[in-house]
Amino acid sequence: MAFSLHPQLAADTFQVREEEDLLVLLMNDRQYPWFIVVPKIDGVREWHELPQETQVRLHLYCVELGKAIAEGFGSTKINTAALGNMVSQLHVHVIGRNQQDSAWPKPVWGLFPPAPMNKQEAQSRSNIINDYFNQH
Amino acid sequence: MAFSLHPQLAADTFQVREEEDLLVLLMNDRQYPWFIVVPKIDGVREWHELPQETQVRLHLYCVELGKAIAEGFGSTKINTAALGNMVSQLHVHVIGRNQQDSAWPKPVWGLFPPAPMNKQEAQSRSNIINDYFNQH
Repeated sequence: MAFSLHPQLAADTFQVREEEDLLVLLMNDRQYPWFIVVPKIDGVREWHELPQETQVRLHLYCVELGKAIAEGFGSTKINTAALGNMVSQLHVHVIGRNQQDSAWPKPVWGLFPPAPMNKQEAQSRSNIINDYFNQH
Repeated sequence: MAFSLHPQLAADTFQVREEEDLLVLLMNDRQYPWFIVVPKIDGVREWHELPQETQVRLHLYCVELGKAIAEGFGSTKINTAALGNMVSQLHVHVIGRNQQDSAWPKPVWGLFPPAPMNKQEAQSRSNIINDYFNQH
């Protein structure tokens, strides 16, 4: 199956996890536990362009990721969104929020410049998600 | 089944469509074809708090609504999001976007004050969605 990750997504993230049919990425922004799920299918921009079984699989995975973020990072709210106005390749944001984060209660996109993290912190955040999925 | 729509959602929207298990609402903002889907279950804030079969049903409905918006309004991009930072009752935004809209390419939330529409325009927009669902 041909698949290549959009260069902008690759530049902005660390890879957390690879499944047969999707990637889990970590946004390089320390301000929030901000993850992105990308189905490994080229040329898809919209949810309704996916086969229905893929819509279900991708969505249930994103919901489980939201639960993992809430449990692993203590986030009191999960924001889930497929926007794609800037990067057209279909990708779903799953972001942990709380009342103390810098953007609260606004959505995070475009509000503040990203605050990059080092590889060690990215690894530590990735481990939290991988531990959850490996146990469920 | 006990259900009451959050007063803020009720104040900001017109009702488009009622199904046995969910409501489709139209945001009172002429700037975009902006719809909201609310599952008729009280006390749910997050996707992962829903039973899995409800996660699937609600998501597939939102995807279909996105297709209806793209076809009915000529939107070239669909934005789908569950945020809930301001209004905690679980609700999913499904918004038609295009490169000529006032917020493009930014997300729509909080960017401009809503531009209210009259009942006739709300009815006309609602009809587009209802015609789609009645034919599919």
